[in-house]
Amino acid sequence: MEKVQLKEHERIDDLQCKGLKIIQDTTGFCFGMDAVLLANFCDIKNNSTVIDLGTGTGIIPLLVWAKNKVKKIYGIEIQKDVAEMARRSIRMNNLEDYIEILNFDLKEAPEKLGVNQFDAITTNPPYMEYGGGKVNPEDKKAISRHEIKCTLEDVIRVSSRLLRHNGRFFMVHRPHRIVDILWLLRKYKLEPKKIRFVHPKVDQKPNLVLVKSIKAAKPELKFERPLYVYNDDGTYTDEIYEIYNMNKA
Amino acid sequence: MEKVQLKEHERIDDLQCKGLKIIQDTTGFCFGMDAVLLANFCDIKNNSTVIDLGTGTGIIPLLVWAKNKVKKIYGIEIQKDVAEMARRSIRMNNLEDYIEILNFDLKEAPEKLGVNQFDAITTNPPYMEYGGGKVNPEDKKAISRHEIKCTLEDVIRVSSRLLRHNGRFFMVHRPHRIVDILWLLRKYKLEPKKIRFVHPKVDQKPNLVLVKSIKAAKPELKFERPLYVYNDDGTYTDEIYEIYNMNKA
Repeated sequence: MEKVQLKEHERIDDLQCKGLKIIQDTTGFCFGMDAVLLANFCDIKNNSTVIDLGTGTGIIPLLVWAKNKVKKIYGIEIQKDVAEMARRSIRMNNLEDYIEILNFDLKEAPEKLGVNQFDAITTNPPYMEYGGGKVNPEDKKAISRHEIKCTLEDVIRVSSRLLRHNGRFFMVHRPHRIVDILWLLRKYKLEPKKIRFVHPKVDQKPNLVLVKSIKAAKPELKFERPLYVYNDDGTYTDEIYEIYNMNKA
Repeated sequence: MEKVQLKEHERIDDLQCKGLKIIQDTTGFCFGMDAVLLANFCDIKNNSTVIDLGTGTGIIPLLVWAKNKVKKIYGIEIQKDVAEMARRSIRMNNLEDYIEILNFDLKEAPEKLGVNQFDAITTNPPYMEYGGGKVNPEDKKAISRHEIKCTLEDVIRVSSRLLRHNGRFFMVHRPHRIVDILWLLRKYKLEPKKIRFVHPKVDQKPNLVLVKSIKAAKPELKFERPLYVYNDDGTYTDEIYEIYNMNKA
């Protein structure tokens, strides 16, 4: 493992998965279960070229690389210092040949990377609509959480342009946005094919939704069983345990 | 209770709810849990005028009348003999002043009943797309199950025309049609406000979805906790028991 320089407030976390490690800024947005569940939800074909839109720490490219036999993954991140930190994580794992972190606005991706040619897109975009107010549009965490730099429609429109015919789109988001999500996916010809809701507990409403679309596919949606995170006693369910463990080995 | 003439293959079932009874044709489509769950899901304001599109046996008007203080419910049914049977059920319950069964194509409802004035619509439409093939388009059960006489888009378009501004729309359908459902609801300005999935068991994918929309409302979707029908041992869950019992008293 290459030696790596940490900045103030940064720490290295072990991903418990093929020896991978990641740098996170303890004052910024740290990756959560969402990213892990999305990486687990993706079925990406061998030799695919993949783009992760709004990659943040680079967690999704790292996990997608670990779980699939992909050719190349581009992680696009608009925040310069966040992109730079993600790049150090990739270098620390000696994965520069497989994962490239690009620092630009994802809305420029079709122009910079080319259209209609990528095999898969992954994205864990900001969940919250941005109405101004108390949110500081310069704050790093706020940019990760709110639609300050890009909207859901931007993410879906750009994904559709980047993907090849029959290319795959994978997103994690909040269930209360499901009407917007499904409406926009169909509008941009990313036909939803698989949906899975994630519930904190059996008797609670879902708080995450995982969606797979295929570009230009015909409508045929499959629901998956719900994913429950916690048992009644507050311990993780077997499935969550498996998802986190599958990444060991 | 008025005396009622039964035809061949007909039987009277007790709804276990305010003494209501219903006539069903044992060779035709008998109402299922879907209708009961939809009636339970509806929150209809006092003094509302309601339309049930594709009313079949009249089960939904009967249960909606029992559970709410509505002014009037129209049940629209295209099949003449099914409508006639529903009408006998209403008469048997002495509810002719509250529930009126109308025998025409629901697509004609805006013209026949007037537009932009009804307070609520309920509907348990045919679930299956009609591709011809093995389905007999004259068969009564097939007409109840397949989109032979009307499509999902017909039902939603007509509902939108009938409802007043802020009128409420309640539907039960299959989860695999959720993209079509949400797309069409938004297309026809019936903004989805509440969604509840129904799962046979905790570890199974949903097989029904309940949706509430409000005409011309602004987007703001609430998810409800999942509804599970069976416990692991095959007995009904407490909530199903409550739904069926709530209708007693």
